Amino acid sequence: MVAPLKLGLAGLGTVGTSVIRLLNAQRETLAARCGRPIEVVAVTARSRNKSRGIDLKRVRWVSDPVALASDPGIDAFVELIGGDGDPAKAAVNAALKAGKPVVTANKALLARHGFALAGVAEKSGTALNYEAAVGAAIPIVKTLREGLSGNTIRRVYGILNGTCNYMLTRMERERLSFEDCLSEAQRLGYAEADPTFDIEGFDTAQKLSILASLAFGTRVDPSALYVEGITSITTADLEAADALGYRIKLLGVAEKTAKGIEQRVHPTMVPKESAIAQVMDVTNAVTVDAEGISPITLVGPGAGGMATASAVVADIADIARGQVVHTFGRPVGRLKPSSKAPMQRHEGGYYIRLMAKDRPGTAAAIAKRLAQHGISMESIVQRHPGPPAGGASKSGGPVPVILITYATTEDAVRKALAAVRGDRVISGKAQLIRIEKN
Amino acid sequence: MVAPLKLGLAGLGTVGTSVIRLLNAQRETLAARCGRPIEVVAVTARSRNKSRGIDLKRVRWVSDPVALASDPGIDAFVELIGGDGDPAKAAVNAALKAGKPVVTANKALLARHGFALAGVAEKSGTALNYEAAVGAAIPIVKTLREGLSGNTIRRVYGILNGTCNYMLTRMERERLSFEDCLSEAQRLGYAEADPTFDIEGFDTAQKLSILASLAFGTRVDPSALYVEGITSITTADLEAADALGYRIKLLGVAEKTAKGIEQRVHPTMVPKESAIAQVMDVTNAVTVDAEGISPITLVGPGAGGMATASAVVADIADIARGQVVHTFGRPVGRLKPSSKAPMQRHEGGYYIRLMAKDRPGTAAAIAKRLAQHGISMESIVQRHPGPPAGGASKSGGPVPVILITYATTEDAVRKALAAVRGDRVISGKAQLIRIEKN
Repeated sequence: MVAPLKLGLAGLGTVGTSVIRLLNAQRETLAARCGRPIEVVAVTARSRNKSRGIDLKRVRWVSDPVALASDPGIDAFVELIGGDGDPAKAAVNAALKAGKPVVTANKALLARHGFALAGVAEKSGTALNYEAAVGAAIPIVKTLREGLSGNTIRRVYGILNGTCNYMLTRMERERLSFEDCLSEAQRLGYAEADPTFDIEGFDTAQKLSILASLAFGTRVDPSALYVEGITSITTADLEAADALGYRIKLLGVAEKTAKGIEQRVHPTMVPKESAIAQVMDVTNAVTVDAEGISPITLVGPGAGGMATASAVVADIADIARGQVVHTFGRPVGRLKPSSKAPMQRHEGGYYIRLMAKDRPGTAAAIAKRLAQHGISMESIVQRHPGPPAGGASKSGGPVPVILITYATTEDAVRKALAAVRGDRVISGKAQLIRIEKN
Repeated sequence: MVAPLKLGLAGLGTVGTSVIRLLNAQRETLAARCGRPIEVVAVTARSRNKSRGIDLKRVRWVSDPVALASDPGIDAFVELIGGDGDPAKAAVNAALKAGKPVVTANKALLARHGFALAGVAEKSGTALNYEAAVGAAIPIVKTLREGLSGNTIRRVYGILNGTCNYMLTRMERERLSFEDCLSEAQRLGYAEADPTFDIEGFDTAQKLSILASLAFGTRVDPSALYVEGITSITTADLEAADALGYRIKLLGVAEKTAKGIEQRVHPTMVPKESAIAQVMDVTNAVTVDAEGISPITLVGPGAGGMATASAVVADIADIARGQVVHTFGRPVGRLKPSSKAPMQRHEGGYYIRLMAKDRPGTAAAIAKRLAQHGISMESIVQRHPGPPAGGASKSGGPVPVILITYATTEDAVRKALAAVRGDRVISGKAQLIRIEKN
């Protein structure tokens, strides 16, 4: 009989209990697949007495996660506490220092301390696995870390937050306002009571910073990101996108450009027929553009207890088989500081929605400012609203103008819009949505 | 300096030369990622003097693939000869017997001899990697073998043949007949001079048999497959599918049912909004349904020199890192003979297109026969063709009738159609296309 892989598991929330359930259900299969049994021998969680619907009778209870992490009775440590600070950080650090492989689902920890922790893992010659941290059950970490070992990656982008995609899907389908949709998502449990972390793009940003490190061999660095959430998206934008052949998705995009590596999170117009545009509701998707081959897209459940547990268990199985892969696919000595491309120098097409004053010369004034900044327009649509329900068209009120530009720079667009504002031909704030081509 | 991984490579066609080019281009990156350099030290191919645009000056030439496979000067063997017979089979066998890990892109070899070769690999405790054999650059083998180690899989299905998907895409978009489309595909190099292997579904079948083994832990067994190609698909079917909210794709489907494991390749109606329906042209895609989680879909280039080389090089990198995973994810002793579910017992919805004689009572006669066999209809559409260009409608000629059934069995459908034929109310052959729901 081969010795089992003895696990210490910290954190018994939805994911932790799902992992224990899955390990139990698949005990025999996993033992056969990995050549040795996998056993949870010790656990820790904030509250010992909570009822969790799993049998922990034969499992040792340890009160301190850090003590559990370096406990001589465990072979590997599974961190499902969450958060980028202690005790998660201290526990993962302690386990790696003690030469114990670690599996974690903690994106915040990886995004903030991934580079440092990779160094500790490498020094000990052990594994730090985190498939569940990005896209849950979607095997994107394994794909970038192992499946595309021989490829040079140019761009990786995706829908990495289920809450935002769910909201954009419902807003588009049902013409719901952002506010109504958010209340509904909160009621149904698809959005948190405090939704900031999701809807402002921070969750996507953490995941993207991990993908960027894997794709480009840079040090994970969330401060290198440009982040814009979905709170400004209106049904008017979704309708305009539809009419123009696009859908709006919150994308995280990491891209190698001549000016460095762009890492940006923002609402994005994607062509309706693209693979990424088909991804609806809470589903996540990641596309990888590698040199010399067509894009590879992975689609699947990006959240949920079982989907996350599925990735955690696969990571545990890799450890049981003795696999050790560099944390970010390369030795830490080869991970370069990310050469951040400034957002002003981003190049691409733009969708611009303005409320123009309805008087002669407005469209011409706007077009002139864009031309002055070297921006070519693919289309300009000025929509006179229909007459109000009760009578004749209101004259002189603001009229929506929608512009689609050819590839230009963020800087030029910002400057042109400032000039347009100076001309006092528009009212309110201009809406700006970047276009991403396949 | 760590010792390099010395490769012997057999087969210098498009894929072989692409592998050598990619290994050269990524020499330094791969050495860093794997902790050791990777070097092709010896090669073999049918013709030594062919110009291949790669520098083989410092590479030893071996005339016999089998001799190369067990050459003491190599650490691992890369088989890119192709075919399910010798020399590919003998060479792979010799390498594994000699304890040398093998990387191959050879689906035919795996489909026919995968179980036996897995046994040889296991006996030697070495790896047999074949990511490139299914879906080229799409990391589906790694996903099933490692990424979903802890999951119970219910169904795996996909678009596994680029030629068929290219043809169905063009037929649908341009309303081309099968014959015209095939000529065009041949002219453009998307179909072989003898296209049988692709268009009759045999290529898909080989790949599916490998996926089924990985997904269900069964012995790979191409004889367990039901195979039907795309040659009977007409523009009438594609138009009807479109009107009914479907697209027609050649799918390979392996599914665990109460009656055993179904392995079937056939043209399939898939809902237009499904992920698989969006996959166009030569792109491939595979969806995995695992218990307890939403489906995972992988989309990407399923053929081509670079896409295939990308997978081969990733497999080589795994070997350089010392990874050994069971060939089909489990020890060979656990691979069960596949319990074939007979096609007559397949359950699902059906699309049936008949040419009915245009006389009173025909539709009623057809409906009666279906009801007699316990088949419920979701819809029945009888389309009177418009009047011919020159005059009045031809009376009494055949009229297309399109039926969509609710879930029923293949057996019931076959028997009902035989009864309808016996009634002499239809002319010609009935078209039957299975419907696959997400």
